[in-house]
Amino acid sequence: MPPRSIHVHLSPALVAPERLAGGVAVVVDVLRATTTMIHALAAGCDCVRPCATVEEARHVADYLPAGKALLCGERDGMKVPGFDAGNSPLEYTAKSCKGLALVLTTSNGTRALLHAAQAERVLLAGFVNYSAVCELLRCEQRPVHILCAGEAGGVSLEDTLLAGALVDYCVALPDVIVDDGARLAWDCFEHHGRHLEEALRLSSGGTRLLLLGYDEDIRACARVDVYHLVPELRRDPLRVEIGAVGVKGSHWPLH
Amino acid sequence: MPPRSIHVHLSPALVAPERLAGGVAVVVDVLRATTTMIHALAAGCDCVRPCATVEEARHVADYLPAGKALLCGERDGMKVPGFDAGNSPLEYTAKSCKGLALVLTTSNGTRALLHAAQAERVLLAGFVNYSAVCELLRCEQRPVHILCAGEAGGVSLEDTLLAGALVDYCVALPDVIVDDGARLAWDCFEHHGRHLEEALRLSSGGTRLLLLGYDEDIRACARVDVYHLVPELRRDPLRVEIGAVGVKGSHWPLH
Repeated sequence: MPPRSIHVHLSPALVAPERLAGGVAVVVDVLRATTTMIHALAAGCDCVRPCATVEEARHVADYLPAGKALLCGERDGMKVPGFDAGNSPLEYTAKSCKGLALVLTTSNGTRALLHAAQAERVLLAGFVNYSAVCELLRCEQRPVHILCAGEAGGVSLEDTLLAGALVDYCVALPDVIVDDGARLAWDCFEHHGRHLEEALRLSSGGTRLLLLGYDEDIRACARVDVYHLVPELRRDPLRVEIGAVGVKGSHWPLH
Repeated sequence: MPPRSIHVHLSPALVAPERLAGGVAVVVDVLRATTTMIHALAAGCDCVRPCATVEEARHVADYLPAGKALLCGERDGMKVPGFDAGNSPLEYTAKSCKGLALVLTTSNGTRALLHAAQAERVLLAGFVNYSAVCELLRCEQRPVHILCAGEAGGVSLEDTLLAGALVDYCVALPDVIVDDGARLAWDCFEHHGRHLEEALRLSSGGTRLLLLGYDEDIRACARVDVYHLVPELRRDPLRVEIGAVGVKGSHWPLH
């Protein structure tokens, strides 16, 4: 069996979508889109319909049965005017979203998700479901592409940090090779892994969220292993649902 | 005075050329283009004319006076068929290039250099002229954009490592702010800074050079402070010349 390759792409701009074909993509947008989707699915929402633009989100929501869709998303960190909800994980409780389809558009996260759609399997990761994602990666033989949403076209510290935590798990598996992006992410994890919340506050995305008053969101996004589910992208129509639940224990290496 | 900002762009794909306007760009392609250009200028070549394509390089060389141009470059790490020289720093001795204009095209480095051309000032860095670059950055008040050439459209460990070494110097200057790319590069330097040659061998670019038999090149590119000159991009025509010489001492932090 050839070695399993672990790639980390620090921004969607660094990988052509077709390079993911045949592999497993793990989409990471810690602040906040993937964390928010995990929260929403854990709270009982039916599925998330990722949309690239505000217009597309309105259009998709219009075609869903009345009372079944929640129109959600942000631009510049703030709820889109006229939308039902923003991109804060704490907004998505059973009361607000159970049984509903979230139609979601965000600045970086939903775009990264759509960028990853050519992979054979697409998983979503946050710190909040870290060990559940590790468990799935342990059972995978396909090339793994960890795709960071990044920030405004560039890299982001917090996504790289989670990517590095995943690399730290994967390199202990047998017969694994890593690319330069994975090494950089691993270095980042080595440096910041013991101080997640502090790192999230340091990052440029975190700094902006703090200025907007989203202190609680940063705390929520820095929590490890709150949920044991892994969201997965399904097709026709393109949507995110709970893909796998259950993890034997924590894989977080820094306790 | 506003704080001085230090940006690290881990690949040209992560920054639009116009974002560099008004700033100082430091182009980094450790393996091997910027190291090679520093070697060639130190050996007495007149200037380097960076070209994006093989065709452009042939064309530029054709228009230079006979006997004055050396047609140089690589594709896939190997000398372009019919060219006078490749992209190995060790090829550029006084005997081979003194008094000549190098017309150079490489897979990543010359492209990064052309990508940086909208910056107000463009410097070239390798480990071999680390402290000389630090010395210039100390005197700069403009935003600094360290632009890594990267590898095949993605990031590269060795360029990030040098970027991190430069960040390590810059953060000790008064009133500096860094972006997330700079933090990642800094983490990389913290991890690999004491083992440069080993890191260069680990990297995907280094691994390929080793397969092609360029062991000596890796050693040459990992040497710190061999030269005290900083190449700089000049215009009309676009060319790289020695911009500044002289450094008071070593700024390398890890002795």
